[in-house]
Amino acid sequence: MRILITNDDGVRAPGLRHLALVAAEFGEVKVVAPDRERSACAHSMTMREPLRLDKVEFEQGIEAYEVNGVPVDCVNVGLHVAWPEGCDLILSGINPGPNLGYDITYSGTAAGAMEAAINGIFGVAVSMATLQPGADPMFETGTRWLREHWNLIESLKRFEKPFWNINVPAEEFDKLKGYRFAAMGQRVYEDRIEHRKDPWDRPYYWQGGVVAAPENARDTDIGCVLEGYVSVTPVSVDWTDYRALNELKP
Amino acid sequence: MRILITNDDGVRAPGLRHLALVAAEFGEVKVVAPDRERSACAHSMTMREPLRLDKVEFEQGIEAYEVNGVPVDCVNVGLHVAWPEGCDLILSGINPGPNLGYDITYSGTAAGAMEAAINGIFGVAVSMATLQPGADPMFETGTRWLREHWNLIESLKRFEKPFWNINVPAEEFDKLKGYRFAAMGQRVYEDRIEHRKDPWDRPYYWQGGVVAAPENARDTDIGCVLEGYVSVTPVSVDWTDYRALNELKP
Repeated sequence: MRILITNDDGVRAPGLRHLALVAAEFGEVKVVAPDRERSACAHSMTMREPLRLDKVEFEQGIEAYEVNGVPVDCVNVGLHVAWPEGCDLILSGINPGPNLGYDITYSGTAAGAMEAAINGIFGVAVSMATLQPGADPMFETGTRWLREHWNLIESLKRFEKPFWNINVPAEEFDKLKGYRFAAMGQRVYEDRIEHRKDPWDRPYYWQGGVVAAPENARDTDIGCVLEGYVSVTPVSVDWTDYRALNELKP
Repeated sequence: MRILITNDDGVRAPGLRHLALVAAEFGEVKVVAPDRERSACAHSMTMREPLRLDKVEFEQGIEAYEVNGVPVDCVNVGLHVAWPEGCDLILSGINPGPNLGYDITYSGTAAGAMEAAINGIFGVAVSMATLQPGADPMFETGTRWLREHWNLIESLKRFEKPFWNINVPAEEFDKLKGYRFAAMGQRVYEDRIEHRKDPWDRPYYWQGGVVAAPENARDTDIGCVLEGYVSVTPVSVDWTDYRALNELKP
């Protein structure tokens, strides 16, 4: 199994190392990742500037490159350089924080798997769902879960269209209650923008926001993780709202 | 009707001016747009840096601001500063090139409307579907189409969930054949990465790619535009692949 690993936290991120090492137990791994953190870069791509690729040292002699771009760039340059004949799986992560509900739309981690799907390749994004910013992501729990569920993950390859978004609760492995397939929830933010002043009394704005838990979260990725389950979500790259379309079409 | 206008081409882009002026015929318009071109920024957001907002001159005395960020930032800062009590419509564009099929996943223009939907606001992205890079986007055709179909657009507000992605063929208005509601097509790129050498003989890569027209494009946004119709596509912010999920759930 030929595996490409990417992320949005950069080639030196601990989560990437954890993901590459567990994947290397099951296939031939090559790493192509951004040269620095690119959080919340979503499914952006670099069009207007040249991309550079440099080989970097990596554990266990794994072939690894850094790219001056975002996950989409890493996937496409990676397929061109590292796996020119194609690969069987693109793994993105492990992100040291949740990618739940609408987070997927902003997420660079998810974008790596999304670009896999657009290239017709099986793509999986993995995140540790910490509950508080700055909390220990507990990557060991994530890698152990991936190791013990590798067959499950491989079996999802039979679905042609979606990519997969996995969130593992950031706690001791033995505390995990299991896993559930779940829909994308609606994770709504409140107080999105903070208004501040700089030392020269000039205003600036910082985008953040408090997550307002939705009421109907039970069957969603958000609900899963809050109850201690790993969430596994099939995410489509066809975003057509067919319900609206069918109502509008004669 | 309170309208926020944004784009990904920057506050000085001609397409933005065209969109703001036609919208001002139907409601109160405020413009909040990036301070420079941010093409293919997708649904990224600025998390790690402060955002600055500056008032800029705009035609017809329209209240306008530039932000050192991407469309998502503009929508959220715009809702905070320009329309603190909320607005009724967020328009994004007019992009001087197509946003068809998978283009939506990379598009900053679409992201402006997507962020509207996530905020619970009616969002519409508008693009001129030129067939060749560098071709005249024919913004006058787009603004005339919007003017003559403003009631149609307003009527789409009754759908709560989706945002709307409109592509207008870049040709003389009288040559348009009409409009169709259409699904997102599968616009697949080939030869995604070009390998080049710089003047110092060092390799670099440029991401581009030739569009390979899909076979089954007829009922999609791509097919519409190729046949001379304006495409109007409802785009969901729930990307769950329910077909896969229903097969997996017990």
